[in-house]
Amino acid sequence: MRNRIRKIWKSEDFGFTKATDNQVNRFLKPGGQFNVVRKGGRFTVKDIYHWLMNARWGVFWTLAVGVIVMVNLLFSVIYFIIGVDKIEGAGEIGVSWAGDFATAIFFSFQTFTTVGYGALAPIGIPSNIVASLEAVLGLITFSLVTALIYAKFSKASVKLLFSDNILVSPHKKGKALMFRMVNERTDSLINMSVDVLVAETKLKDGKFGKKYDMLNLERSNIMFFPLNWTVVHVLDESSPLYETSCNGFKDSSLEFMIQVKCFDSTYSQDIYIHHSYVSEDIICDAKFELMYGANEKGVLEIDLTKLNAYSLVVDSEMTSV
Amino acid sequence: MRNRIRKIWKSEDFGFTKATDNQVNRFLKPGGQFNVVRKGGRFTVKDIYHWLMNARWGVFWTLAVGVIVMVNLLFSVIYFIIGVDKIEGAGEIGVSWAGDFATAIFFSFQTFTTVGYGALAPIGIPSNIVASLEAVLGLITFSLVTALIYAKFSKASVKLLFSDNILVSPHKKGKALMFRMVNERTDSLINMSVDVLVAETKLKDGKFGKKYDMLNLERSNIMFFPLNWTVVHVLDESSPLYETSCNGFKDSSLEFMIQVKCFDSTYSQDIYIHHSYVSEDIICDAKFELMYGANEKGVLEIDLTKLNAYSLVVDSEMTSV
Amino acid sequence: MRNRIRKIWKSEDFGFTKATDNQVNRFLKPGGQFNVVRKGGRFTVKDIYHWLMNARWGVFWTLAVGVIVMVNLLFSVIYFIIGVDKIEGAGEIGVSWAGDFATAIFFSFQTFTTVGYGALAPIGIPSNIVASLEAVLGLITFSLVTALIYAKFSKASVKLLFSDNILVSPHKKGKALMFRMVNERTDSLINMSVDVLVAETKLKDGKFGKKYDMLNLERSNIMFFPLNWTVVHVLDESSPLYETSCNGFKDSSLEFMIQVKCFDSTYSQDIYIHHSYVSEDIICDAKFELMYGANEKGVLEIDLTKLNAYSLVVDSEMTSV
Amino acid sequence: MRNRIRKIWKSEDFGFTKATDNQVNRFLKPGGQFNVVRKGGRFTVKDIYHWLMNARWGVFWTLAVGVIVMVNLLFSVIYFIIGVDKIEGAGEIGVSWAGDFATAIFFSFQTFTTVGYGALAPIGIPSNIVASLEAVLGLITFSLVTALIYAKFSKASVKLLFSDNILVSPHKKGKALMFRMVNERTDSLINMSVDVLVAETKLKDGKFGKKYDMLNLERSNIMFFPLNWTVVHVLDESSPLYETSCNGFKDSSLEFMIQVKCFDSTYSQDIYIHHSYVSEDIICDAKFELMYGANEKGVLEIDLTKLNAYSLVVDSEMTSV
Repeated sequence: MRNRIRKIWKSEDFGFTKATDNQVNRFLKPGGQFNVVRKGGRFTVKDIYHWLMNARWGVFWTLAVGVIVMVNLLFSVIYFIIGVDKIEGAGEIGVSWAGDFATAIFFSFQTFTTVGYGALAPIGIPSNIVASLEAVLGLITFSLVTALIYAKFSKASVKLLFSDNILVSPHKKGKALMFRMVNERTDSLINMSVDVLVAETKLKDGKFGKKYDMLNLERSNIMFFPLNWTVVHVLDESSPLYETSCNGFKDSSLEFMIQVKCFDSTYSQDIYIHHSYVSEDIICDAKFELMYGANEKGVLEIDLTKLNAYSLVVDSEMTSV
Repeated sequence: MRNRIRKIWKSEDFGFTKATDNQVNRFLKPGGQFNVVRKGGRFTVKDIYHWLMNARWGVFWTLAVGVIVMVNLLFSVIYFIIGVDKIEGAGEIGVSWAGDFATAIFFSFQTFTTVGYGALAPIGIPSNIVASLEAVLGLITFSLVTALIYAKFSKASVKLLFSDNILVSPHKKGKALMFRMVNERTDSLINMSVDVLVAETKLKDGKFGKKYDMLNLERSNIMFFPLNWTVVHVLDESSPLYETSCNGFKDSSLEFMIQVKCFDSTYSQDIYIHHSYVSEDIICDAKFELMYGANEKGVLEIDLTKLNAYSLVVDSEMTSV
Repeated sequence: MRNRIRKIWKSEDFGFTKATDNQVNRFLKPGGQFNVVRKGGRFTVKDIYHWLMNARWGVFWTLAVGVIVMVNLLFSVIYFIIGVDKIEGAGEIGVSWAGDFATAIFFSFQTFTTVGYGALAPIGIPSNIVASLEAVLGLITFSLVTALIYAKFSKASVKLLFSDNILVSPHKKGKALMFRMVNERTDSLINMSVDVLVAETKLKDGKFGKKYDMLNLERSNIMFFPLNWTVVHVLDESSPLYETSCNGFKDSSLEFMIQVKCFDSTYSQDIYIHHSYVSEDIICDAKFELMYGANEKGVLEIDLTKLNAYSLVVDSEMTSV
Repeated sequence: MRNRIRKIWKSEDFGFTKATDNQVNRFLKPGGQFNVVRKGGRFTVKDIYHWLMNARWGVFWTLAVGVIVMVNLLFSVIYFIIGVDKIEGAGEIGVSWAGDFATAIFFSFQTFTTVGYGALAPIGIPSNIVASLEAVLGLITFSLVTALIYAKFSKASVKLLFSDNILVSPHKKGKALMFRMVNERTDSLINMSVDVLVAETKLKDGKFGKKYDMLNLERSNIMFFPLNWTVVHVLDESSPLYETSCNGFKDSSLEFMIQVKCFDSTYSQDIYIHHSYVSEDIICDAKFELMYGANEKGVLEIDLTKLNAYSLVVDSEMTSV
């Protein structure tokens, strides 16, 4: 797998651009989305659906309730215009504008939700037609809500956490780049693999050229993922970053683009997760602290809050390269 | 992958036919569907479902509302035949045919949507039975609508745009066939690969024989797809089209059948997209214009409206073959 | 793929049994299901779900409506026992047993569907409790119906048709076993592959032993599947069936177990289809008739009703082996 | 596949931990979940969803009905506080506290289910607002129930049964470790493969070190799975367990971690199943009894209740190693 991808990316042309007139900040946003503006696309129903599918539950429910309230107010206005006297059981009408409108609102909600007590009921053709329409619309609205709730539920949402930083750590007799990740949930991910692509910007002939390299990893896949996984790229002769010092990394504009593939056994499907680190995220001469251990009952415990915990390495710990 | 497929297609027998008495226009329609008429198939519920699943939202809603209205009118007729006097609260009946029928319609809608105000209610056995039936049917209808809405939502619909034309462009010291594609959405497609099969018709022994070849591509897969992808087939000695001039392409009846495979990370599933170009779509001596660039904020911008933009190549630009 | 599978099946132990005391008719039913009786399994909700998911629409709707009617009758009996005088608006009660029960039924349906006109309404604690329960049950029932409708819709149901017979046909200078298949729908299947496993029964040491062989196929996969696909196993020296004559096939108890893998582009998922032929399905010295051709408009036409059409081969056509 | 995985696990670092201060009981629970405690994770809506998706149907319905009842009681209290005199048709109020609250409860259920007979209906602004809210909430609740029912249905739940024990059985001229599994359902699983990883704990330098080995299997995949599958690891020179006697297995703290991959043809998706055996599950010198046979009608019968049936091997049966 990694060999195949490396070959692709060594080719002259690649998915990202080779050279641009302006400097490109980063190709992937920290959350993993492409940092690209798309002009001239058509807007469709599916785009609303995608947006709702990815929206937070709070946003979704606010919007759903908001739409329901707005539609009801709209129909209330229509009933008010037709005349509250066309609603049976409206009682004394014309006493106050507000009271009549309240009747219209209550009738609207009783129709939209199809609760239809009948204490309020439409009289005459116009209000009957509008009420029929509103009842159908109400049912369709809740059909839509049902479909969207299930869509949101069924979207596999892997909660993979990445360390904030990418460290240059002592490793055997040299140094290595390390970041780590952990699954926030207990049980879902198996058969994971990871690819790390580094993009380096170089100014050449007045244009900002990009150099791309796939990094060799000490281990690029695991079968189970019960604990954390520290991904290690050894900074040896085979590394494209070998000749640059750690401070050099921070000065050059590097971008590490990470693609994780895994099988989500809860949803039984392959999942891809993207993440991106830039030069500012590099910490020199530091190492991650252990996140887990076995407790007295013989059960492994992992503390997710320690994901970003690292300690700086004192000189005596550093091995000479 | 491509090697395996090529081997298959080099075999004597293939998925498409080898020879026919009449000329075959094209195997794939421009949208990618097979251009085949199928006789003698059975029609099933699943066929309606597939049709609705692929129908546009406008068509779907028109049909859904249309069916609801028709069913209600049908039940209205039944209530009218049973007699509007069997609807409690119908008021003065028999005044006018239209007024009675309106009452039947309103009662039908109040029953179908289960709003059931009760201002109108069934009296006697026949109208009670019909009303019970209609209420059940109403709920089943909205169950169906809910299921279909979700089905339409959950269908992965990749919005992959292909350039209208396939160009013969200058390429290094020779020429190449080029078409390009772009994802209308920002974020969904990764790990794309493409195969291009060309079919050439030759009249032989009174039959229209077909010759099939898989074309070698400069690059046949990419990891990310943030920008556009120009697919390039170099017209060198290894190409089955090498000895034909560009005008020759236009005269012969070529068909380029394109299969794109990618992983849709929104829906977490593999997707295949098909597209087809014929001889008329070929433009000689032209090259595509750049669609994207980095703006001052360091963010890449791509303009989808430039997908089909190409400029003709003047003689001095053309390299001698 | 086929090589890997052959190796597995050449091993001494295999998925099916090697030897049994009684003769085994066939391992796969014609429809492709395992012909195995399973005793001692637990019965769960999922089993009902699976059964409903695979049931025909007619069966599903009959059952759904039947359950709704039965539940309503059950509640009607409860209301009748509580007393129809506990239903407001029941009119003159006690006139006839049938009239009272009809009132109970109508009230039950109005509650179950939540139409609740109110012309009939519960009075007192017992009938109110039962009515509340019934309304909740009614909504849950339609939730279940909605979920099941979608489940039935979303199940990828490939309509792959197999020829009734497997023919021994003239092929080049020898003979070959041939069966063919066609997709009843226009557009869904791509990247198909097929495996054919033959099981031969031999009586040995008082036990019925089984010999398994994967058959070599002239072509075992195709990219597109617009027309029919004739699967061909050449009866040459490499075939395990080489030394048996066609009538010998019919006398011995052979079973051809077929596994087809394909990608269903409508549902974007891999599908496996199984089918099985036995000795009785073999036709000697016959060949399939062409199912398709190009019409005058240059469009391919395929006639599905010709799937089983074959003609017997006269002596002069047969090539000597 | 197995070769790739073995290589990974032979590496120094692995998914599970190498060494801990305390002894680790087992990495996988018998049901296959990771035996890991996760601290500091955030709790989200998706976690509730996952829990409900995996909950038993009895638990799900109890919870669903419980929530519906609680919400109705809550609204009943609100109506009671507002005053039952604000419910039209409440009849004589104030007669008894219980009678008034019963009216509030009935009105609440009639609103929540949208049955809305109207015999009870809200009067005035506060009760109308609360009733509108409750009707909307009722519909949303049943939308959620519908979505969850479908989610529970659509989750592929393979009923793969493992034998309680792992046996050391006579095998050819030596011995082998054997466990077996069977599909409780008839038809769903094909193309199965299995991997067995053994973890051995060794106390070293005051820490509990772990040694991991992938076991060679006589057969690691099958095409069909109609009967039971006995997985066999031969205890020969190539086995990491070769030099340990069976009683030695029981004394050392071994853990066999099993990963089964298969294709579920009912749901058309890949499924992974995990299982784990520890030293206590080992039975020395025993062999499994046959679970199936052909009946007189020539149909294979398998008795799932015999899954755990084994007989101890008498000395004369044991072959000398």
